[in-house]
Amino acid sequence: MAVDLTKYVASIPDFPEKGIIFRDLSPLMADGTAYKQATDQIVQFARDKNVEMIVGPEARGFIVGCPVAYELGVGFSPARKKGKLPRETVKASYQLEYGTAELYLHRDAVKPGQRVLVADDLLATGGTISATIDLVKQLGGVVVGCAFIIELDALKGRDRIKDYDVLSLMHY
Amino acid sequence: MAVDLTKYVASIPDFPEKGIIFRDLSPLMADGTAYKQATDQIVQFARDKNVEMIVGPEARGFIVGCPVAYELGVGFSPARKKGKLPRETVKASYQLEYGTAELYLHRDAVKPGQRVLVADDLLATGGTISATIDLVKQLGGVVVGCAFIIELDALKGRDRIKDYDVLSLMHY
Repeated sequence: MAVDLTKYVASIPDFPEKGIIFRDLSPLMADGTAYKQATDQIVQFARDKNVEMIVGPEARGFIVGCPVAYELGVGFSPARKKGKLPRETVKASYQLEYGTAELYLHRDAVKPGQRVLVADDLLATGGTISATIDLVKQLGGVVVGCAFIIELDALKGRDRIKDYDVLSLMHY
Repeated sequence: MAVDLTKYVASIPDFPEKGIIFRDLSPLMADGTAYKQATDQIVQFARDKNVEMIVGPEARGFIVGCPVAYELGVGFSPARKKGKLPRETVKASYQLEYGTAELYLHRDAVKPGQRVLVADDLLATGGTISATIDLVKQLGGVVVGCAFIIELDALKGRDRIKDYDVLSLMHY
């Protein structure tokens, strides 16, 4: 029987800055049943799209994307912040809901033509995910979908990725 | 048939500092077959120990530990750097091979008595993994094993965790 995933979200006011309610998924990830259920929903979404590679942004995107990659038998490539990837990279700049940053992918992280699912824990303004999509496209990858555990509807991130098929397991 | 995992390790001289050869596992993680094989070896190690929870340090420990948690049907708790975990935490200080840092775990990341596997990509001096073990023990968890994809034998990290059963898939 399915568990109610909303029971595994901790809502923290004023983190990391005043006025932001942080949706913390660590209780979901720490519960074997909830984590498996959330992962399996994304696996099903990815399977229907014949996904060949998962890309997730640092660091919670790894927790979401890696078990999906494992279950599908495909690889996982991390999109990382400056200075973390030791080999030749491509780069994309983006605006966070609180600040700006750059994201990088190794040049061989995605093969040209590969069907890629981009995964992260949470869709907010869509800045991080847009940068991740940009990186995949720079490498010639084909983004066939984006998957999130939570989507914050009021921040309209979905508008920024409206060309893509988006799965969000929960909405706030 | 098993693949030779050593073929999926990129060795980068002088990263992140001069004199250090960085062993980059991103090619292994990006290859579905190699990533699954490495994960399954850790899953087998964990299954024999009745592991109930995986804990991995930021951020490559997530890539190693999360699919193991998924396959076992147990939870994953991330050990993170300062300012990343929004709720009440425990803290451990440690020395890296290049610098010092602190690592944190949410107070409810591990339940007292829970059987925990600590997982990371690489065992070097053992600083990060010792801090992660310390955090698990502060919460009353029982560390039943440590798993790595690579162990750098010359740095003698294993001496620092000699009380624990250690699995390393490759040695350099």
